[in-house]
Amino acid sequence: MRERLVVVGGDAAGMSAASQARRGRGPDDLEIVVFERGTDTSYSACGIPYWIGDVVDDRDDLVVRTPQQFREKHAIDARIRHEVVGIDTGAGRVTFRDLDAGSEDELAYDHLLLATGASPLRPDIPGLDGPGVFGVQTLDDGQAILDHLEGRDIRRAVVVGAGYIGLEMAEAMVVRGYEVDLVERSDRPMSTLDAGMGDRVAQAMLGMGIRLHLGTTVEGVEHADGDLRAVATGDGTLAADVVILGMGTRPNSGLARAAGIPVGPETGGIVVDLRQRTRVDGVWAAGDCAEVHHRVTRAPATIALGTIANKTGRVAGINLGGGYATFPGVLGTAVTKVCGVEIGRTGLGEGDAEAAGFHPVCATVETTTKAGYWPDTATMDVKVVAERRSGRLLGAQIVGGEGSCKRIDTFAAALWNEMTVEELLNVDLSYAPPFSPLWDPVLIGARKAWDAVVADTSAARRGRDDPR
Amino acid sequence: MRERLVVVGGDAAGMSAASQARRGRGPDDLEIVVFERGTDTSYSACGIPYWIGDVVDDRDDLVVRTPQQFREKHAIDARIRHEVVGIDTGAGRVTFRDLDAGSEDELAYDHLLLATGASPLRPDIPGLDGPGVFGVQTLDDGQAILDHLEGRDIRRAVVVGAGYIGLEMAEAMVVRGYEVDLVERSDRPMSTLDAGMGDRVAQAMLGMGIRLHLGTTVEGVEHADGDLRAVATGDGTLAADVVILGMGTRPNSGLARAAGIPVGPETGGIVVDLRQRTRVDGVWAAGDCAEVHHRVTRAPATIALGTIANKTGRVAGINLGGGYATFPGVLGTAVTKVCGVEIGRTGLGEGDAEAAGFHPVCATVETTTKAGYWPDTATMDVKVVAERRSGRLLGAQIVGGEGSCKRIDTFAAALWNEMTVEELLNVDLSYAPPFSPLWDPVLIGARKAWDAVVADTSAARRGRDDPR
Repeated sequence: MRERLVVVGGDAAGMSAASQARRGRGPDDLEIVVFERGTDTSYSACGIPYWIGDVVDDRDDLVVRTPQQFREKHAIDARIRHEVVGIDTGAGRVTFRDLDAGSEDELAYDHLLLATGASPLRPDIPGLDGPGVFGVQTLDDGQAILDHLEGRDIRRAVVVGAGYIGLEMAEAMVVRGYEVDLVERSDRPMSTLDAGMGDRVAQAMLGMGIRLHLGTTVEGVEHADGDLRAVATGDGTLAADVVILGMGTRPNSGLARAAGIPVGPETGGIVVDLRQRTRVDGVWAAGDCAEVHHRVTRAPATIALGTIANKTGRVAGINLGGGYATFPGVLGTAVTKVCGVEIGRTGLGEGDAEAAGFHPVCATVETTTKAGYWPDTATMDVKVVAERRSGRLLGAQIVGGEGSCKRIDTFAAALWNEMTVEELLNVDLSYAPPFSPLWDPVLIGARKAWDAVVADTSAARRGRDDPR
Repeated sequence: MRERLVVVGGDAAGMSAASQARRGRGPDDLEIVVFERGTDTSYSACGIPYWIGDVVDDRDDLVVRTPQQFREKHAIDARIRHEVVGIDTGAGRVTFRDLDAGSEDELAYDHLLLATGASPLRPDIPGLDGPGVFGVQTLDDGQAILDHLEGRDIRRAVVVGAGYIGLEMAEAMVVRGYEVDLVERSDRPMSTLDAGMGDRVAQAMLGMGIRLHLGTTVEGVEHADGDLRAVATGDGTLAADVVILGMGTRPNSGLARAAGIPVGPETGGIVVDLRQRTRVDGVWAAGDCAEVHHRVTRAPATIALGTIANKTGRVAGINLGGGYATFPGVLGTAVTKVCGVEIGRTGLGEGDAEAAGFHPVCATVETTTKAGYWPDTATMDVKVVAERRSGRLLGAQIVGGEGSCKRIDTFAAALWNEMTVEELLNVDLSYAPPFSPLWDPVLIGARKAWDAVVADTSAARRGRDDPR
């Protein structure tokens, strides 16, 4: 008998899952209906800052596949501007709203996949819901920002939050010729990097004329005559013609919670097993709305990244299509480029490691991206975090010039395999003068971290410290 | 009692070992004497093509540390222009020649490290030992080439051998404005890459005006009036004002062999154990002259690369200094850039895998270095070699535009840990539009290879093939 898979959310996780399920089961065997409340399916949210910053010309460039393509090529019924507003897991039925028609209806499912994503954090601050204040999550958000910018005389932008999106958007605003103020609660930009590693980023931002307000919170957003005027902060009032929110996201798990589908108390993400099944029969979850297993802390986490959404969606879809796949977890790997500085991280920073219960031993080295004598070699800093005594690699961070950040993937592969820094320092990595110093920065970082572990152990043996 | 370490060969392996031994044991405890027959210690041989090609200005840029620096900073007595010509392992004594003075003398050792390197292959061809024909191994070789080029009216260069050095030197000759013929015995340049993967390299070379003579051998080198005139090949006679040899190298193990120190019958490299000890008490070996364990074939190999020379030298030196270290082996990882094309490889190619006894299953994908919509994204080809049934990763090759080749290190880390391609395709690698498509090329390659392994297994199950 033909079954029906209903997918809630038509971006990376939802459409990856739908496509994989279709590969496993044909249209006569499995009907697939996707409800997406926005106007796009399967797009590159990570590309939005570059679209706004004019690196990418066209909204369509960021769309991987349209609803029409899914319908015609994959027999997937992807309905945009349709929002699922309720789930009855007992009856196996969703209630959905056609946002354009304003009508509501129900649809039965045999299998349900929740891929509802995450939403930008919008703290409860006066005026934050008013005009001129934007999150950066969907292409519709991007379009709204562009419409706002292009319809007025914009001179001053305030960006709230100095994480990946905040920094990328701050740069995009500079590229567009605006004065930019960046307000960040912590004491440094990119607080996912350890203290010290973010200095180079801060310098580059200052060099581009971005005003940094660190250790500062937003207290209110002021409007007059229906237009945005200013942002009140602990560092004074900043005139603003546009406000961009880059304070991170939270999983969209409210729909699941209301339906009695368990949500992690610490993460707010939907609890799933290795195959992406929720705790309720027939209901699956993938992408930003679901928990993932963090392979270093061994704890559940939520990470809103397209890579993870695609991978977990693929795993869910293979299983829904009658195959077998499990998702082995994440490391928290990420890269970006801000004001010409490349940034990469994987695993745990020093503070993360302590919070997780490790005793970290760290080493930071300044090295070069190419042979030292190569004409356009750039400097890069590598920080390696290892566990006391065992020397197990716990994480790494890279900040540097062109050609530095993708090396984080080598650390990620080492971390994935739970290598010690002593093992890592001997790995047969590549070398040629245009690409690396003879000892690749990854190896140098590992070697120095191993030296630090040995010194720490020796110090402990001599009684100056107690290594447990 | 003060002991004496004698090191034969003062480049990467020898000086790494000497430095590490010094870190472990002070000058009052261990005397260190290094004999180097050339005029430099510790230099970047890999940089020579770029020095000749004017990317690097100065010979001195390629010298990491001079004999004087070793003497003053590390109390290492590095004697250049001194060649060890005999070893008496029974008496614990070497015979050395002062090449400038022409005198010979003996020196006793407690520990002996052989770091004699490798020499360019010079097949027995008429005229190959005449003037105008050069190997590319030492800075002295590089200087001899430059002296030759700068002292005459050079118009035509013939490069023999299309491996790393041959290709890099061919490009350097084009950069200097010469007409270049490249003669290669096999049917493609970079025969360490599988057939198909080298096409892009060949195209780029043709695009720079290099004439390729593939499937062709050199039959003789013609001189007249003491000057080089032409190279006779199976493809006709090529006028030549300079000939560069890039046919690979062989380990300099003659000295060891003559002293009764076992040399591998297949590799020609000195046999060593995990700590870099030879089979003779008190004698160690490291670098290009010694065998290394290949972690994929599980067989001994010799690989003449600075990275391995440094690593094995470091391991020998730690042990000679009273510490403990073992060398875990190699993968055959290498990168280079030729005529704007980046090339990377690690582990086994398809043919290598068959020769080693594996049944390889392969996948090749064309992908991009950055997000597809990124303005200056480049294409890159990735070939992944996996084992039938198990899906174990056996090797990978990358050929592509800027930003492609260093990804080989991620494959190397995966290979080191004996991952399957199924495990690899889920690894949490980094993504951002300026650096990668959403699925990094490493992951795409692994995914396609896994698909190929599954298809191969299914085909076998259906009886169309027999998977052993």
